[in-house]
Amino acid sequence: MSECIFCQIIQRKAPASIVYEDDQVVAFLSNRPINVGHTLVLPKKHYENIYEISEEEAGYLFKTTKRVVHAVKEATGIQGIRIVQNNGKDAGQIVFHLHIHIIPMKPYCFFRQQNGYRASELLDKDAEEIRKNLK
Amino acid sequence: MSECIFCQIIQRKAPASIVYEDDQVVAFLSNRPINVGHTLVLPKKHYENIYEISEEEAGYLFKTTKRVVHAVKEATGIQGIRIVQNNGKDAGQIVFHLHIHIIPMKPYCFFRQQNGYRASELLDKDAEEIRKNLK
Repeated sequence: MSECIFCQIIQRKAPASIVYEDDQVVAFLSNRPINVGHTLVLPKKHYENIYEISEEEAGYLFKTTKRVVHAVKEATGIQGIRIVQNNGKDAGQIVFHLHIHIIPMKPYCFFRQQNGYRASELLDKDAEEIRKNLK
Repeated sequence: MSECIFCQIIQRKAPASIVYEDDQVVAFLSNRPINVGHTLVLPKKHYENIYEISEEEAGYLFKTTKRVVHAVKEATGIQGIRIVQNNGKDAGQIVFHLHIHIIPMKPYCFFRQQNGYRASELLDKDAEEIRKNLK
């Protein structure tokens, strides 16, 4: 079994609250959200970082991210959204499977993990709301 | 004249150290870099944020960002690169023309503006190095 937790999620060998999925890309909720609705968007194929992915796939990944951003904004009602993508440990990358963070930001929300783990039942409900808003 | 500083840069009515340019997209150096090589990539057409741009244009913007990321990494020799894109003032957006930050991150580099303004002659030299590494 792959040791990569994101590959395990993609293969349904580890749990996650899935927001969007197609042949190439998957999006699911962070279980340690900075704010409610903090979503990760990633290619299904394992690339460590942006250096490894093709330009075409990078383009499609961001196009999908934009779609998910709208749904996160509508579902949470939060107007400020920060998109972050870290490459390499010096940039703060923790899981070494390329992923884009969609982070709803409230006023005066400092950019750090604030609430610890969020219960999976709550994440499932958050995901349902986001999926309803996907166009 | 547009009041948007990024539109002024695109129209060559304000100075900037340009790294890349085509019909749709331009990339130039931040004049208040978090680290040397801190680059902004943006659509030439004025969109306030990611909510306004089309999916196709968003895809192309990120595809171009990936190209510039490689050149920034090669030119600076910095392995960690953080990509950030802020939407709305609550997310820390300051200039309201959609832009993607490419931020070279050194170990233990805290995520804030560290060095104030960088002299334009130095920015021009940085840009030249980055352009040399564009493929």
